[in-house]
Amino acid sequence: MMTENRTPLVLPASGTPPDPVDRGPAVDLAVDLTVDLDELAAHTIRLLSVDAVERAGSGHPGLPLGAALPAWVLWSRHLRHDPADPDWPDRDRFVLSAGHGSMLLYALLHLTGYELGLDDLRRFRTTGSRTPGHPEHGITPGVETTTGPLGQGIGTAVGMALAERMLAERCNTDEHPVVGHRTWVLAGDGCLMEGISHEAASLAGRLALDRLTVVFDDNDVTIDGPARNSCTDDVEARFRAYGWHTVRVDDAGDPAALDRAYAAARAETGRPTLVSVRTTIGLGAPGVEGTPKAHGSPVGPAAVAAMRAAAGLPDAPFHVPAELRRAVTGLRAGWSAARRDWTDLHERWRTAHPATAAAFPLHRTPALDDPAGLRRLARAADEAGAAAAVATRRASAAALCAVADACPGLVGGSADLASSTGTTLPGGDVGPGSFAPRTVPFGVREHGMAAALNGIALHGGLRPFGSTFLVFADYLRPALRLSALMRLPVTYLFTHDSVHVGEDGPTHQPVEQLESLRLVPGLTVLRPADSAETALAWEIAATATDRPTALVLSRQDLPELGAAELDRVRQHGYRVVGTDPDRPDVVLAASGSEVGPACKAAELLRARGAAVRVLSVPWRERFDRALDTGLVPRPAVPVVWIEAGVRTGWRALAGPGDAVIGIDSFGHSGPGPEIAAQLGLTVRAIAAAALRAIGRTPHEP
Amino acid sequence: MMTENRTPLVLPASGTPPDPVDRGPAVDLAVDLTVDLDELAAHTIRLLSVDAVERAGSGHPGLPLGAALPAWVLWSRHLRHDPADPDWPDRDRFVLSAGHGSMLLYALLHLTGYELGLDDLRRFRTTGSRTPGHPEHGITPGVETTTGPLGQGIGTAVGMALAERMLAERCNTDEHPVVGHRTWVLAGDGCLMEGISHEAASLAGRLALDRLTVVFDDNDVTIDGPARNSCTDDVEARFRAYGWHTVRVDDAGDPAALDRAYAAARAETGRPTLVSVRTTIGLGAPGVEGTPKAHGSPVGPAAVAAMRAAAGLPDAPFHVPAELRRAVTGLRAGWSAARRDWTDLHERWRTAHPATAAAFPLHRTPALDDPAGLRRLARAADEAGAAAAVATRRASAAALCAVADACPGLVGGSADLASSTGTTLPGGDVGPGSFAPRTVPFGVREHGMAAALNGIALHGGLRPFGSTFLVFADYLRPALRLSALMRLPVTYLFTHDSVHVGEDGPTHQPVEQLESLRLVPGLTVLRPADSAETALAWEIAATATDRPTALVLSRQDLPELGAAELDRVRQHGYRVVGTDPDRPDVVLAASGSEVGPACKAAELLRARGAAVRVLSVPWRERFDRALDTGLVPRPAVPVVWIEAGVRTGWRALAGPGDAVIGIDSFGHSGPGPEIAAQLGLTVRAIAAAALRAIGRTPHEP
Repeated sequence: MMTENRTPLVLPASGTPPDPVDRGPAVDLAVDLTVDLDELAAHTIRLLSVDAVERAGSGHPGLPLGAALPAWVLWSRHLRHDPADPDWPDRDRFVLSAGHGSMLLYALLHLTGYELGLDDLRRFRTTGSRTPGHPEHGITPGVETTTGPLGQGIGTAVGMALAERMLAERCNTDEHPVVGHRTWVLAGDGCLMEGISHEAASLAGRLALDRLTVVFDDNDVTIDGPARNSCTDDVEARFRAYGWHTVRVDDAGDPAALDRAYAAARAETGRPTLVSVRTTIGLGAPGVEGTPKAHGSPVGPAAVAAMRAAAGLPDAPFHVPAELRRAVTGLRAGWSAARRDWTDLHERWRTAHPATAAAFPLHRTPALDDPAGLRRLARAADEAGAAAAVATRRASAAALCAVADACPGLVGGSADLASSTGTTLPGGDVGPGSFAPRTVPFGVREHGMAAALNGIALHGGLRPFGSTFLVFADYLRPALRLSALMRLPVTYLFTHDSVHVGEDGPTHQPVEQLESLRLVPGLTVLRPADSAETALAWEIAATATDRPTALVLSRQDLPELGAAELDRVRQHGYRVVGTDPDRPDVVLAASGSEVGPACKAAELLRARGAAVRVLSVPWRERFDRALDTGLVPRPAVPVVWIEAGVRTGWRALAGPGDAVIGIDSFGHSGPGPEIAAQLGLTVRAIAAAALRAIGRTPHEP
Repeated sequence: MMTENRTPLVLPASGTPPDPVDRGPAVDLAVDLTVDLDELAAHTIRLLSVDAVERAGSGHPGLPLGAALPAWVLWSRHLRHDPADPDWPDRDRFVLSAGHGSMLLYALLHLTGYELGLDDLRRFRTTGSRTPGHPEHGITPGVETTTGPLGQGIGTAVGMALAERMLAERCNTDEHPVVGHRTWVLAGDGCLMEGISHEAASLAGRLALDRLTVVFDDNDVTIDGPARNSCTDDVEARFRAYGWHTVRVDDAGDPAALDRAYAAARAETGRPTLVSVRTTIGLGAPGVEGTPKAHGSPVGPAAVAAMRAAAGLPDAPFHVPAELRRAVTGLRAGWSAARRDWTDLHERWRTAHPATAAAFPLHRTPALDDPAGLRRLARAADEAGAAAAVATRRASAAALCAVADACPGLVGGSADLASSTGTTLPGGDVGPGSFAPRTVPFGVREHGMAAALNGIALHGGLRPFGSTFLVFADYLRPALRLSALMRLPVTYLFTHDSVHVGEDGPTHQPVEQLESLRLVPGLTVLRPADSAETALAWEIAATATDRPTALVLSRQDLPELGAAELDRVRQHGYRVVGTDPDRPDVVLAASGSEVGPACKAAELLRARGAAVRVLSVPWRERFDRALDTGLVPRPAVPVVWIEAGVRTGWRALAGPGDAVIGIDSFGHSGPGPEIAAQLGLTVRAIAAAALRAIGRTPHEP
């Protein structure tokens, strides 16, 4: 029986808190937390996990079985959170990077008292449940981020840990240390094999994010066999090479060793910590323990029964022993007390520092929502537009500064292309121990950058942006997909947006990227044509609360089109540029850098007596919807659609008599205008297509 | 003057060749190769580079200036190649992973006698030249792979080095060691910051690819400033953690030290080698040396003049000293002699082992081109189709075995999903020192896998495939883009191709990936609907010579549709399934797993008296083109287009009266059929859309 021979646990010393803001583990030591309770908790987690997987008929028991005790020791002794308030801003973040082990997280959330009942666990992996196959932020209380695509959790956690430090620098006073929490990650070998883990860990090492701890579930097994079959990295040496502190626990069944390791992580200053724990995949499941079979399939009812018997638990699925419930009740009291103390502190801080509290709303992502900010943006556009022509990346740089002035919580950076993408803000770069600046030198790490942006947005209090060349959007696509799936207000700046990049050649000339971004559900894609539209694009991005935005910007100068009709862009995604005939013979519709050539083509056509309407369509999604719902009358005349990229998406809008001019092949190295011409993107080609569409041959007088 | 004080070079011992196949440096030691000649060569490379960048008005002088001497020492003393025959199969491969430094490569190619004249250098970065902004395979003789997107070169080189070992294992005999070359990479800190460098280096370490050497141009500067601003990795420790041998050269100006380092790399057995060379970006360029300014802009005419004077070279751009030419002539004689020896060896080998030579054509990528192989494929389809229903991933597994039987050069693997994607071939996995198997355990490294596939295809002699889930195509997209840009016959298998993945939820349910692959120029995307179409898809993939192919396959069983009309798929990308009325009232056109529901909807519609034609469209690109060019008459009746993914691409084909049924939002966790139904993808929805398109309301009797 589990209840026998229980001796009181002597909690090992957890190290001196590394700085005044570390309040130590939020555990009430008066709780009857015993060694056997650890075992009981671990068994309960394991059995809840296999029960849920059995019931669902699918799922991943391997990780929950092996990592149950390491996770329980972390959650019961070190994680500072309050299940009664999952949104407590100063809670520690726990990220299950190995998201397939979701039942481990759900079991922990249930046991520690989050709003997730046994019925939720019973509905694991069923439609509409709060226990989806992989953890999904926004569906389950206490799930800090959506994970499953391997490695993303680590990258996201780096953003969270960075946000914590940047906010602490901005908000904390000696009297009011309102920000002081940690970020914990549980990752598997799959996460660490992914390239994003390199980018994330290298960035965290450089920034010395010492409140970040990655627990490595080192079970030595992957789906295809023993991990060493495909990977023989010395993971700890690798992380030390990034500047990390590393700790190893050889026996995942030793709560004291685990406790010491986590304490060492918390005591460490100046370096993030990797705690490698040698675990056994599918621990305790007869026949599959220690093998790839444990990874992703139910272990079967006989194995579950054997496990239950071995654990000394009653023969009933989804059982939680009452003594475990009682013990957790004690833990919860301690957690809630800590959270209430913080709430009082936060109130005093808000009263003492109202401006700071308004600038950095710890409970959410700040947005540009004041009229003064919008006026600043408009002024930036006017100033940029004072030149006859300006690259939208330059217009964006001006707009970014205006937004940054108005929104102190805006932070971000570039994947080593700050000057090219126009994302240098005053104040220099953050660095180790220096988190006051608002620019993050992400390095040549597009993927790690995007995941970190997700983490910053999830954290709350700061509003993130990141930039690179459009063609390299491919490098960060998996993280951008998560921005969209989680509806995070992340702003992506993608510059050098077409073959007009020129001499750098096809590897640097995006062709398919713009349209491929538009395919991502829930991502706002804006391709402004001049400085006014760029400022508007920034306004849309910086005021968004539940969508990421991609600003697609030109390298080359574009003619200024004036500030008219911007409301129509806001509403319906397009505006009319220049003369607007009552009854056009033809419409030229373009985005970004192609609006200028469309205007020139219109002049040629007007010289030949045609009535031409030119549309700039920076927000095609909205224009498409407006067309679809009849909000914008579909013109009764032919349309020539023009964009320097693959034509698919514009063909989707085109009617039978329309023409679509685009680029369905890779570009070439050479001066931008030459390459564009070579690929058929010229003023004459636009005019000729329009004449054909009207029914005149281009050679007709 | 450069000609004074020249002392004959004593070439340092380059180590004992590590095995009998290493023939040592192909240098004729009788050549008057002097220390000053090294200096002269380095100066010449530097000045050719800045001359070309000045003339072009743009480009990247920083790396060529800093790495000129390290590269020259490698090329003159260690690289085994023959500029007179750039396609020599047993040449060493040199990959400039830091592709922006293209002028370094072009200068070396020119100097060593490749078919690249000074006029070509003068046309650097101009339209149609053989010297594009970044190195492009297929445009410039001697350019082994297209580089520029950072980190890709390292990943590609791992594939080349792996192909070399796998081919050596298959082809070499004691008497005829026809395969025995090395792969050299020059990479910068940008390459090493990218996540793909982790995946590639970790894989190379695991496979103990000891004929791979990465030379790290450690110049400590990135575009945004000092490299340490964003990265403080201990690169050598990191590579040692991957199982690499590391060597450091602190003085990039010391040819003897460089020579020793390369010799140490060649002498090393059992580990790949990283040679870190501490260089100075923009070396010798006044005002920009050692700063980010040297990276990507012309240094200016004054700086060039100063450099020329300091080098003691005449005041004329694009000058190559005659004594350097003479010395290279001597080197070339040695290189060509080595190549001729090999050609004789190769002839003897071909005669002695004709079957092996036919199976592994060292000069090109083998393809499935024999009728017996095609028959095997058809039989595999028949066998798979013997069941009433089969998942196309399972049909693909059968087809893969048939192709592998018929094409011994087919090799590949999976990113740790071999059993799920059906890519396990008999014979086990390759491993260190064990290259006879044909399966590569790529590990959870999609991006590294795809780059390695490119390297294998570029290498010649083997035909690569790789697999993962469709949703994770996002992780490898930058490398896949290079497959398409280089027109490499790589086969990608993407399984679990829709929301029918079900319980694993939106992170594992592709929605936008299929269409986003179709946007990549030059990538064949095939989504077969049953086993016959899957076999045909494999036939198209395995016979391709100048295009990559993506096979998009279902996780779930799909009904068998029979083997009729496959020729029409080959020609026009579609076939008619089942009954084909002469005058249909409506056409239902679908791909992959949606053809089955379309057939069921057709039955419902037929029961209501409608004449329905059902099309399976596995190859939309070809179907689209056939429609576009009138090869397939556009039906005069409405079409309902159906696919479990974003609708954009089908809307592009749709006429005004058509309907498009797809999924424009993310999925959810739950059983596949429930999720598909929730997202509107049901037989009833298809039938209802058809009725509306015909002009009947769904409720009409």
